[in-house]
Amino acid sequence: MTSTATPMSSRLSIDYYNATAHAVGDRDGITDEQIDGLSGRVATEHARIHAEHQAGEQRWMNLPDDMALVEEIEAFAAEARERYTDFILVGIGGSSLGALATIQALAHPFRNMQPDGVRVGPRLFLLDNPDPEKVRATLETVDLPNTLISVVSKSGQTAETMANFLVAREALVAAVGEEQAVKQIVATTDNTSGLLRVLADSAGYRTFPVPDGVDGRQTVLSAVGLLPAALAGVDIRQLLAGAAAMRAATQGDDIRTNPAYLLAAISYLADTEHGKSMLVTMPYADALYGLADWFRQLWAESLGKRLGTDGREVFAGQTPIKALGAIDQHSQIQLYTEGPNDKLIALVRVGGYRSTVAIPNPPAETPELSYLANGELGQLLDRELSATAWALREAKRPNLTITTPTIDAFALGEFFYLHQLQTVMAGALYGVNPFGQPGVEAGKNATYALMGREGYEQLRTDLTQSVQGSEAYRLTAAGQG
Amino acid sequence: MTSTATPMSSRLSIDYYNATAHAVGDRDGITDEQIDGLSGRVATEHARIHAEHQAGEQRWMNLPDDMALVEEIEAFAAEARERYTDFILVGIGGSSLGALATIQALAHPFRNMQPDGVRVGPRLFLLDNPDPEKVRATLETVDLPNTLISVVSKSGQTAETMANFLVAREALVAAVGEEQAVKQIVATTDNTSGLLRVLADSAGYRTFPVPDGVDGRQTVLSAVGLLPAALAGVDIRQLLAGAAAMRAATQGDDIRTNPAYLLAAISYLADTEHGKSMLVTMPYADALYGLADWFRQLWAESLGKRLGTDGREVFAGQTPIKALGAIDQHSQIQLYTEGPNDKLIALVRVGGYRSTVAIPNPPAETPELSYLANGELGQLLDRELSATAWALREAKRPNLTITTPTIDAFALGEFFYLHQLQTVMAGALYGVNPFGQPGVEAGKNATYALMGREGYEQLRTDLTQSVQGSEAYRLTAAGQG
Repeated sequence: MTSTATPMSSRLSIDYYNATAHAVGDRDGITDEQIDGLSGRVATEHARIHAEHQAGEQRWMNLPDDMALVEEIEAFAAEARERYTDFILVGIGGSSLGALATIQALAHPFRNMQPDGVRVGPRLFLLDNPDPEKVRATLETVDLPNTLISVVSKSGQTAETMANFLVAREALVAAVGEEQAVKQIVATTDNTSGLLRVLADSAGYRTFPVPDGVDGRQTVLSAVGLLPAALAGVDIRQLLAGAAAMRAATQGDDIRTNPAYLLAAISYLADTEHGKSMLVTMPYADALYGLADWFRQLWAESLGKRLGTDGREVFAGQTPIKALGAIDQHSQIQLYTEGPNDKLIALVRVGGYRSTVAIPNPPAETPELSYLANGELGQLLDRELSATAWALREAKRPNLTITTPTIDAFALGEFFYLHQLQTVMAGALYGVNPFGQPGVEAGKNATYALMGREGYEQLRTDLTQSVQGSEAYRLTAAGQG
Repeated sequence: MTSTATPMSSRLSIDYYNATAHAVGDRDGITDEQIDGLSGRVATEHARIHAEHQAGEQRWMNLPDDMALVEEIEAFAAEARERYTDFILVGIGGSSLGALATIQALAHPFRNMQPDGVRVGPRLFLLDNPDPEKVRATLETVDLPNTLISVVSKSGQTAETMANFLVAREALVAAVGEEQAVKQIVATTDNTSGLLRVLADSAGYRTFPVPDGVDGRQTVLSAVGLLPAALAGVDIRQLLAGAAAMRAATQGDDIRTNPAYLLAAISYLADTEHGKSMLVTMPYADALYGLADWFRQLWAESLGKRLGTDGREVFAGQTPIKALGAIDQHSQIQLYTEGPNDKLIALVRVGGYRSTVAIPNPPAETPELSYLANGELGQLLDRELSATAWALREAKRPNLTITTPTIDAFALGEFFYLHQLQTVMAGALYGVNPFGQPGVEAGKNATYALMGREGYEQLRTDLTQSVQGSEAYRLTAAGQG
């Protein structure tokens, strides 16, 4: 892979005029006073975050610097790209969303359909859901003797991942035998502990580390995200360079000039002061839809918290929504424009797309289409973004636009770091701990109970009893007419 | 295609106990009194809807009956499946979402990667977005001499669709010549008027009708949805049979036994009486994610309305959100469980998946995983749904479960009809007109203005001036650190 010249610094820009009271009025837009009113808190939290980082916390900030890991991954990936035609990523949530976002943005959109030799790296298949239909179809589609299986879980406790891994591993063993299968499996997991570490060490799998002190949703710039990206031919050095550039651009504590803090403050104020309980991320590029999905996990799990850091119940969190421009103009914009004024909409603009497609002149029979003549698709898409931003503003719906000059690994790295710092600051403003996800434990435990796991017998009884008495609220459609 | 035996009647069922006050308390759950309190209005609106249908309105209800269209499509599709290796669908919003939902649910998940001869029908490519990167990649990937282009637009005014069609058509002409290109293009459009009708008639394209009196989002059971489905090998008779069965199951006016009205009432009450401003649809099957996306357009465009039918400003609408179980347990459930209690969550259960995948016994080194032994993936996924429903209920988050015995064309048809009637009734309860999408006009006009369309000069001036004075709210990340 050829590294392109690394830009010198962050290239993203933010236009938030349409989110302000100047554009949409006092009721729905944030005021200069509100932003200024937060500046002291932001500066204080900035100091805290950096002090924590100095003290060995906030370790996600260090991920752009691990060049030894980059070399290790590049060496592994270079060999694997030659050796394998197929690659199965077994992982869910934070163990897959970052890799997907990266590959969707940076690889050929139909890379799995490209022939060997044209395609860069093996075809990618994802086993995230334990959906038997998808798992079966995947194992029937890949060429197992030429397939690398990569299983990703820090703890090795994730039921979906371990079930899917056991299934995929068995299929691989059946195809190539136990001894060879070991060579075609790589595990990304905790360096020293956990069930997957035990399995990997006892079987002899090659492993990559999930770093300590980092939540799953913060691992995109660790081996969790980098290894699949490198297998798909992504320039992971540029990815980290972009993240590092954004880190450099976010060293200041000024709410107005630190883009991560500005975005955090706008979202927080829009939610808590103006009732914008939803944050829509709407890139105008198919390639960036995965980025919106990655952000959706980050924002939801980090801010969606019952307890504040002071121990009181706060039930905080703004609901992230992924949308895609211009497609969702034909699905969601009617609601966003005319429905309840309860959303902040973050549009993502691409300054220059990686392809240029001229629109041919329309036939003479339809002069109504002549406005498309001499046009270009990227220009049309860009103007649709401008039109949507304007229409939303006219309807007093606050919105902002983040612009990247183009879609490349550097830009992706910038987005990843920007949104992670934005989320950490937003957690501080909401007064919640942005790390951990205590709310998913109940469901996990209930799954264990229903699967008959030892130690969960009482919960199983509770669960079984809890569904009693609800028969009156079941409706079978058949024969009700 | 072999038709399987048609079920006699609707097979969907609904369990809404967890959405009631009995399960989650009075503040967050709907009460029996609230449901009963709506029963009169529901019966009245039922009578109105059926009277309108008798009078020639509500024409979407007739779509399951057009067997002449089915025969025409089947004949065309049978030939096209033999003739073409590739199929480009040019359409956006209602012109593509229904077809995508159907094909994602019913065709092989990796059908575009299956070899010719194994795959049923041509590979499917979608040109919805005028994204130059995706359009370029698509045109480079398909084999144009063996490609059918299907363009879908009722009016032929849709900028994205017409631009993409002009591009795809030119590429086809370049590959096979003008005369042959005409034979490889099919247009689904208004029977008598509109720009695409003009283009089709003057060029001599084969056409299929977009029915009159039906919004784009209600066309899944017309040629708009049926033609692509048939090309992918879907049994469209079963699709319509399922819709007809659901129509038969929803003839009654009883809020408690008509599943469409019950769902409409639950959602409406949850929103207006209990602050559940979002409706999450969360199927536990990858194959049904497209269905959730189709519903997302239907619910948003139909209910998201500024004006009530009485002409007053109401800003109505519940925000639909698509989620996927179990994946979003690792992304959104933290927020859904611990964040603001502002959502109604509709889980979709599959009684029996189309594949069975046994989970192999875990290695002896990890006894903690022995609960997976003798398990099966579909069973795990199903228990995750039960666990999630229970955990949500424990956190007082209202939820309901719609169960389909399996995923087949009949079930899809049931879902389509069920949700359409649910939406029409919900519109009535909200007091809005569920048809039309007046809120998207401003953005469309702004796009025309920015593209220099004749007649939009004043708007273009307004737009250009409107961005002045906002420089202070632009932030470039570079060098801000």
